[in-house]
Formats: sequence, C-alpha cells, structure tokens
Amino acid sequence: MSLEPVLSRIDDDLSGATDRLLALLRIPSISTDPAFEADCDAAADWLVADLKSLGAKAEKRATPGHPMIVGHFDGDGPHLLFYGHYDVQPVDPLDLWDSPPFEPALEDTPKGKVIRGRGASDDKGQLMTFVEACRAWKEVHGTLPCRITFFFEGEEESGSPSLVPFMQDNAEELTADIALICDTGLFGEETPAIITTLRGLLGEELTITGADKDLHSGMYGGIAMNPIRVLGGIVANLHDDAGRITVPGFYDGVPELPEDVAAQWAGLGHDASAFLGAVGLSAPAGETDRTPLEMIWSRPTCDVNGIWGGYTGDGFKTVLPSQAHAKISFRLVGDQDPLKIRESFRAWVQEQLPPDCTVEFKGHGASGASAMSTDHPAFEAARQALSEEWPKPAAYVGCGGSIPIAGHFKSLLGMNAMLVGFGKDDDAIHSPNEKYDLESFHKGIRSWARILDAVTRNA
Amino acid sequence: MSLEPVLSRIDDDLSGATDRLLALLRIPSISTDPAFEADCDAAADWLVADLKSLGAKAEKRATPGHPMIVGHFDGDGPHLLFYGHYDVQPVDPLDLWDSPPFEPALEDTPKGKVIRGRGASDDKGQLMTFVEACRAWKEVHGTLPCRITFFFEGEEESGSPSLVPFMQDNAEELTADIALICDTGLFGEETPAIITTLRGLLGEELTITGADKDLHSGMYGGIAMNPIRVLGGIVANLHDDAGRITVPGFYDGVPELPEDVAAQWAGLGHDASAFLGAVGLSAPAGETDRTPLEMIWSRPTCDVNGIWGGYTGDGFKTVLPSQAHAKISFRLVGDQDPLKIRESFRAWVQEQLPPDCTVEFKGHGASGASAMSTDHPAFEAARQALSEEWPKPAAYVGCGGSIPIAGHFKSLLGMNAMLVGFGKDDDAIHSPNEKYDLESFHKGIRSWARILDAVTRNA
Repeated sequence: MSLEPVLSRIDDDLSGATDRLLALLRIPSISTDPAFEADCDAAADWLVADLKSLGAKAEKRATPGHPMIVGHFDGDGPHLLFYGHYDVQPVDPLDLWDSPPFEPALEDTPKGKVIRGRGASDDKGQLMTFVEACRAWKEVHGTLPCRITFFFEGEEESGSPSLVPFMQDNAEELTADIALICDTGLFGEETPAIITTLRGLLGEELTITGADKDLHSGMYGGIAMNPIRVLGGIVANLHDDAGRITVPGFYDGVPELPEDVAAQWAGLGHDASAFLGAVGLSAPAGETDRTPLEMIWSRPTCDVNGIWGGYTGDGFKTVLPSQAHAKISFRLVGDQDPLKIRESFRAWVQEQLPPDCTVEFKGHGASGASAMSTDHPAFEAARQALSEEWPKPAAYVGCGGSIPIAGHFKSLLGMNAMLVGFGKDDDAIHSPNEKYDLESFHKGIRSWARILDAVTRNA
Repeated sequence: MSLEPVLSRIDDDLSGATDRLLALLRIPSISTDPAFEADCDAAADWLVADLKSLGAKAEKRATPGHPMIVGHFDGDGPHLLFYGHYDVQPVDPLDLWDSPPFEPALEDTPKGKVIRGRGASDDKGQLMTFVEACRAWKEVHGTLPCRITFFFEGEEESGSPSLVPFMQDNAEELTADIALICDTGLFGEETPAIITTLRGLLGEELTITGADKDLHSGMYGGIAMNPIRVLGGIVANLHDDAGRITVPGFYDGVPELPEDVAAQWAGLGHDASAFLGAVGLSAPAGETDRTPLEMIWSRPTCDVNGIWGGYTGDGFKTVLPSQAHAKISFRLVGDQDPLKIRESFRAWVQEQLPPDCTVEFKGHGASGASAMSTDHPAFEAARQALSEEWPKPAAYVGCGGSIPIAGHFKSLLGMNAMLVGFGKDDDAIHSPNEKYDLESFHKGIRSWARILDAVTRNA
C-alpha cells in the first residue's frame, strides 16, 4: 500500500478534517468539574461514532468516572495501540479569552492559520491527527495498514482515577506491540520530537483552619492566628534561596543527567530567552545551578497551582478568615517515589503549624516519572518518517509534563510507548486562548500517515 | 419629662420594635458589592420613612456612592447627633450560614432569644436601639427630650468614600454638642462600655504578575517564577518571629500604654481564654511581649483578609498562574500615619519582587486611630445611666475596631464622640450566622432612653 496517495488525500481533505475537529471542540468536555459530566459523555459518543465510520469495532466503556473508548481494527503486521484523551482543562479565567472557549474557529494570525478553542491542542486536535491519518488510509486503500487498537480516555486532565483499574481489568485487550501517544509537542517550531523522558506528578490540596468561624479583624486582629499567614509561610518555605525544594527527602532518587544526554540536549540549541520571552519573562527562576533545559526536562519542581481564603470579591472586607486553602503540585523525575514524597510533604506541613491551627489534605494523583526505551524498531522508523515531513530532522527529547499512562503501559502491560506530538510552545494549553496551528494539524496527520507506512514496511 | 413611663413603653412595644428591625434586616444593603446598589437605596428609604414617623424632618441625600440620611428634630437643651450605618457586610461564605442571611428571624438559643441575620448587630440592630428609644419617648411625651440630629451612612463597610466630603459640605448642619455612635459592644456580657480609643484602618489590595499569561506547570514549572510563591513570601514576611510587623517605619507613632490605663484595663478581669475559646482558639497569636487586651485595644496589627490566585475550583489544574492577589489591612493606633505606612508598605513589597514580577496596588481606605476626650458631661451622665440599666457598672474601654467617623467628628466638626454599643463577642459580625441578642436590643433601647434622660437632666 503506497503512501503518496494517502498524503494527497490528506491534503485534499484538510478542510473536512478541520470541520470534524471543530465539531469535537464544541463539546465542553471538562473532566475535573462535575457540571460537565454529560458533555464528557457526549464527546465520548462522538468519538465512538467516528471510529465506527473508519470501520473499527468501537465501544464506550463505563468507569466510575468518565467513560473510556476502546476501538479495534483487525489487520496484519504490527499491532499498534493509539492513546489520546478527549477531556479538556477548565477555562477560567474566562474573561481572559478573546473568544468563547467552546465556540472554536479557524483564525488568521501573523504566524498563519490557527484552530482556536479549548482542547484544540490538548488533546483533541492531537488525537484527531492520528484518526484523520487512519481515515485517509482507509479511504485510499480500503483498509488500515495494520492492526490498530484505539484507546481514548476522558479523565486525563483530572488525575485519571479510573485508568489503572481499567487497564488492569482489560490488560489483554489493550496490549499491543507498541503504544503511540499524541499529547506532546515539537521541539521549537520545526523539529519533530520523540519524547524519551516524562516527569511524574503529585498533587496535594491543603486546607488550614484556625478559628472555628470567620472573625472580625477589628475584634480579633492581632490576637487570633490568621490561617492565610500560616499558609503564606508554608508556600514561602517550599523553596530555599537556591530554588531547591525543602521538603525532606524530596531529592531522593533524582539522577544527575547522563553526560551523553546533556551533550545531545546542548546540541539542540534551545533558546531559553525566546522560550521565556514568549510569555513575557526574561530570567529562569528555578534552581540557580541548572541549565534551562535541565529545569524543565530533568529536574523535579514544585508549584502552587491555586490559593484562596478570606474575602476575594470586589471591595474590601476586614475578615480574619477561619480557613485558607492551596493546591500544590510536584513534578517528579527519575526514581522519586510520589507516595513517599506525599507522606514527607504532609509531615513537613504539620510541623510548621502554630498552636490552634490544623490542616486537612486531599490527594490529587500521584505518578512517578517515566523513561522510554527506544529499542523497539518503531522508534527509528518514526524518527526517519518524521524527518521526511518536517523542515528539520526529528530529535529524541525530554518533556517537563506528566503523561502517567506511558508508565502504566510499561508497568501494567509490559508495552513500550512512543510519544510523538505536534504542539507548539505558544499553544497556550491549560490557558486562555488555547490554539493549535493548522500546520501542526495538517503536518501532524501527514506525520502519522508516514509513521504508519514506515512502521508497517519495516515490520 | 419622666423616664419611667418611657421605659415601660419600651418594654410593652418590644415585639413591635423587633418586627421593625426584622423589616430593615430583610433589605440586603451590602455596600461593597455594586450588585446591591438598589438595596442600599431601599434601606435608606426605609429609614427616612421611619424617621419621619418620629416627627423628624428627614431626607435621603445623594453622594457619588450610597446615600446619606440626615434627619432633624428640633428641641431645647443639648443638641445631640446620633450616627449609625445602614449598610452591611457581604455574606460569603454563604454555605456556612444555617439560615438565609437576609431572612432574619427571632431564634431561641441556650443563651436566650437572638435576632439572627446579616446586620442584626452590625449595625442595623444597634442603630435601631436609638431610634426605638426616641420612638418610645415621642409616644409617651409627645416629643423628644432635646434637639436631635440623625445621621446615617450607607458606606461604612466599604471604606466610607463619600463621608468626609459630605461632612465637609454639610459641616454646619452636622455640628452638634456631642455625637453619639452605636456601633460597638459590651465588655463581656454584663458590663456596658464607653469606648475611649479606636484603632485606625489602612486597606491595601495587591496584584502580583509574573508571566503575561497562565502557563502549564509541566511546560514552565521550574523555570518560570510563580506569582503565588512571591505573594506567599510577602505574606510570610509581614511578621517577624516575635509577631511584630516588619514594614519599615510601621511602629512610628505607636505609644506605650499609660500606666493608669494599663492598671484600669488590668482591673477589668478580661478572660483571654474565654475570649479565644469562644471561637475555638486557645493561645494568643500576636506580639509575644504584649497582654491580650493590649493586642486588641492598643497595638497595631496586620491581617491578610483575602488571598487568591490560580485554579480554586473543584479538582485540580496544573496551572502556573500569571497573577496572584491579596487584600491586606492594617489596624493602626496612636499617631501612626496611614498614608506614610501605605507608602512604606508599597515600597517594601516592591523590594521583594524577583525579576520579571510586577505589582499593582489599590487602596481601600486609610484612617488614623482616635482617642476620645471624656471631658464632656455627657460621658459621666451616660456612665451613670448605663450602670443603672445593666448588671455591672459601666467601664471606659478600648476598641480594636476602626470607626473612622469618630475621628472625623473631632477633626472636621470639632465635636466629641461618645461610643456606646450593646454587641457581644459572639455576635459573629462580618461572619456567617450574625446575630444580636434580644437582650442587647431591649436593654440597648432602654439604655438610650436612660442616657437621653440623664444627658437632658444634667444639661
């Protein structure tokens, strides 16, 4: 089965593919907010129908949370599993969006056409690059080039609570020769990237309570402990002056970067000024003794993702609040153990509480870091295929984000994962005005067609 | 004009007086939130009509914010001005109220009957104690015992932006022999109190900005400065280990407590354990070298009244936010200069900003502390009158709260102010489930009748 007519078909059908993506983007499938449960379900239905239109046997599978989608297309040659997620991030602060997040549209920008809307890049647009490559293949050759299992999740943005049990319960059905994941980015604008390391993620929510009710700061100010003050101290203490995280034992299992990897990364010519400048920053703010690429690819971090307490509306209220809250996450690398760090973090917070203050914790996901093995021949096939599609040769790179499923594929199913994606640094994923370049979408579809071809031919 | 029939009339009409207060409490006159503008206006109209029913010439007077109310009742003897405010605090967190805040009701509790609802104590219930005393006097004697000016404000809970200009523009009309203010509390449960010192209040809102958009903590975590981390550091740095505020020059103008006042306060037998225990606390959390009464009456303080940034909804979002916000207030004493402290605070914050972070400030009120002179004969007359009504003799005490108008009466109109109120420590003003004891309301009305009698007889 030849590749060229498939690529032509992709070029000819770009506007149809874009319309299909826009339809999927119109469904506000925010997984973390229970108010959007029906929308998550609707997005799952949409995808099941679309997979069926490709000739796959596809089903929505119930979980205690949002449904999974599993689709099978039988065939010869290697058995590939493709994973993506149909859920999206919340949209607040809504007032910073220039257009409604769930009324997606193709938009002209100085850098070219973009698809604007929540989920355009993360992950609906990326997920559809693979589906559209399959569609073109099917339309041209009447079949797909090999056996493919589609596996879509609806809880990736909310800690994937149902994922591991589902994978355990359906291990045999979900095991393929290799897993393909499309939820990452290019390196820069022109270099396709295959991710070989992913950071882990530990999420913690804490509530500090002082008095048993909100107080008047005129009556109790100066005598009653203010939990916002306590929380401020804890936030301030998370890092030392050198930018290192102070939770005891946090750096256990953090490896130093191997010299060959450091050399390869140095050769990538990463422009930290441009990377930071794109978001209005000028100086790296992390560990003072690390390079920028180390900070984002191979070093563990801690961020406060949310903080709230007291009166936050218009005007002023002299309240001395009873409670203060924060959501704090840690990105993990190497062999850092998320559960040990959770325990150490909670003890470390407890130790800082003054008299009369208590703390409650709520865990939000805990996954370790992953390192991919590139031994499987699909890696080299994909590297060559990607290099043919894009202006620059493909690179093996690290990733600062956390895609726990890559680790689960390995640990639960004994399956290697290959992460290829076409996002750009300015896609504003998780932010207002998220977009996906039409070029990413178009070349992304073409890239998967090339990878399918290369992997099948080399098998 | 004799007092006894007035007191009897008050006793007989308590249920009518309570119904009138409940009607006023039903109007959600939250001044700080623009959504309640019409309600503030409705509360003002209600009071104008009520003053007219007493035979006063009363008017609603427009301001750039919420209206003032001025009412005059002519008569002989001393000219008294009575001040109160008809606006109330916001009600959030709404889910902590056991009944809707603007559906007030009389409620039986183990400690007796209470009037439950936002504003019951602060300040509608207290304001109405004086109005009801006048009503009883009018109904029994056909007139009030002396010349009285009523002056009600609708912006006290939102920094009183229109107050000083209005007082300046209407100085002659508002100048009386003495001002009476009912917006404070008893000392404990049984000791009526006349306030002789009030703390000032400086409110500041700050917004710290890092990147020019919200970022994904997987992509930028560990390299981009998180403004919540910066804000946490600033909050943590506000106090040193001894509980002192670290803003440079903050303690300029803070007097030591005179020995005679310290001795009088020591004689009051303040039970700090009970005061803190009432709100679930056990240990004073302020300056380590000060007594509890000093902390709340005569020492300056700083509190964070609100903090917010990043994702604060259900679930988790690994956002690295562009901005973090806080509302911070300072209670001031002695000769502390609020404007100098504002300037010093803003410079102090600026100095702590790391590269790439900026800060914007918004001021919310700035008033100095007040000390009342007790030379006017009304003070001694009131002390005796209050001692006759309540189980224990009246005391001259300090107040941790801020009632800037007391200072304005002195500085703008050359008029002494006498602050008498009947709130209790557990009234939960500014908090969910605010209440006013029916005993406070009843004895409060009787107290004002006694004070009117005593001041008039002694004049």
